[in-house]
Amino acid sequence: MDIETDFDLKAYLKKQQDIVNRALQSYLTDPEARITKAMEHSLMAGGKRIRPVLCIAAAEAVGGNSDDVIPAACAIEMIHTYSLIHDDLPAMDDDDLRRGIPTCHRAFDEATAVLAGDALLTLAFEVLSGGIKGVDSKDILKVIGIIAEAAGRNKMIEGQMRDILNEGKLISLAALKEMHTMKTGAMIEASVRTGAILGGGSEEQIRFLSEYADKIGLAFQVTDDLLNVEGDPEIMGKAVGTDEKRDKSTYPNLMGIEASREFSADLINSALKAVEKFDNKAVPLRKIAEYIIERKR
Amino acid sequence: MDIETDFDLKAYLKKQQDIVNRALQSYLTDPEARITKAMEHSLMAGGKRIRPVLCIAAAEAVGGNSDDVIPAACAIEMIHTYSLIHDDLPAMDDDDLRRGIPTCHRAFDEATAVLAGDALLTLAFEVLSGGIKGVDSKDILKVIGIIAEAAGRNKMIEGQMRDILNEGKLISLAALKEMHTMKTGAMIEASVRTGAILGGGSEEQIRFLSEYADKIGLAFQVTDDLLNVEGDPEIMGKAVGTDEKRDKSTYPNLMGIEASREFSADLINSALKAVEKFDNKAVPLRKIAEYIIERKR
Repeated sequence: MDIETDFDLKAYLKKQQDIVNRALQSYLTDPEARITKAMEHSLMAGGKRIRPVLCIAAAEAVGGNSDDVIPAACAIEMIHTYSLIHDDLPAMDDDDLRRGIPTCHRAFDEATAVLAGDALLTLAFEVLSGGIKGVDSKDILKVIGIIAEAAGRNKMIEGQMRDILNEGKLISLAALKEMHTMKTGAMIEASVRTGAILGGGSEEQIRFLSEYADKIGLAFQVTDDLLNVEGDPEIMGKAVGTDEKRDKSTYPNLMGIEASREFSADLINSALKAVEKFDNKAVPLRKIAEYIIERKR
Repeated sequence: MDIETDFDLKAYLKKQQDIVNRALQSYLTDPEARITKAMEHSLMAGGKRIRPVLCIAAAEAVGGNSDDVIPAACAIEMIHTYSLIHDDLPAMDDDDLRRGIPTCHRAFDEATAVLAGDALLTLAFEVLSGGIKGVDSKDILKVIGIIAEAAGRNKMIEGQMRDILNEGKLISLAALKEMHTMKTGAMIEASVRTGAILGGGSEEQIRFLSEYADKIGLAFQVTDDLLNVEGDPEIMGKAVGTDEKRDKSTYPNLMGIEASREFSADLINSALKAVEKFDNKAVPLRKIAEYIIERKR
């Protein structure tokens, strides 16, 4: 049996998503509180769980125990969800629909959505500080630092700031790449590094995996832009064509659709090259890289 | 010389505030970025720094080195400031003025204010994870957990949620106390516990200091309510009488002004009793307790 060929990515993703979903749900104690309901509305809306799955797959790739990284994987998904809730707010992107259901401020109200985002961000650090077992405290602190930096003012938040400031402006391809590296790339890299560190990876392995993450992070965004042009709103659970309506700078409109497709394919090839020295335990990471540009939502 | 009588609280507060302000400023690298300017606008607006000073004073009270707790004290002030920025938003309390200057969303815009709050909350955990020296990693993780819990959905955020839901409603005194314990008390207690833990306090000392913090936290809120009725807007740097305009339940309107004053004095007496076994190193904590109900802003 050839592991690489016979690997069933769909089954793997489903299995990891189920594990992550169960773990995420377990953190939402006090289900009757309005704040919990708002957090749950957005957190359990059936996201792809790309970041947690990458975190788990990175831990596996370095021979680590995937159970040890579930809390960190969940914390990362909480941070991702908080960022979506706040980005959707009327003062930001003013979106009504997300993951096929009303955005948090639409389902509840604006104040509740601000607080639900704040609560998810804070809960992420509570889980990181107390939920990870069997790992040295120094490594846990390191991971908290990596995640906080990636989610912080020089990366994810600065990326969103620039995204807002750039709305309606045509920016250069270099500026677009930098913005995306900040806005989405940094957290994807942090997900992979977190898995690699908690899984006990060597310095060299962590470096290769960071390179892998950097490439797939950018490819992920290019594909997102392509899906916004060519995607099926039914499958995606959100409107398409919204970037063009907003005069947003995107890869398709700066490079053209065909060149964007080639660019993302090149990025995935570089990602695969970065993990070529890894053994079969990295098969999930390889398959996820391919999936990132083939996905329909 | 009698340390207790001759202790100059004003000079002590000024010294600690200066140390905290310098440290806070040092975290605001990249001063030209819009997000940094917005963070700085609110963070460096001359707050009283009650929480960081309590954190430092608690470390001193257990014989710890105050330098070791400065990063944690700063992180706590960042979280406090983020909560003010978000609470002031139009969707929440819709305040125009804070600490004598325009609120963050007034000085910048709503999107920037949401992001500046998010960035301060995230930076707090970055500083906690990497900025504390000379303390065991396990204790740092414990402190991160305490702060995240106090700032989280069952405490500070739930308190703010209830504050919004209760607006215009007359609630019971018990419900008001519970709300305040969540909204402000939990973070004050976390500040003191953080100082005590990082300062190397014993279990018993930490228990007494938590009791102290619990009492002064509530007294702080009662005094805030009294100042909103009787305070001088010039000294306070913000409008007074706003609670009444909003039909807010407060101690003065549920208990009467005189009974509120007595209640806060009783709380301070209980706080002083909780730290009576401590030696002279707890003088600052004792003096701060007295200051809390005597303050004019």
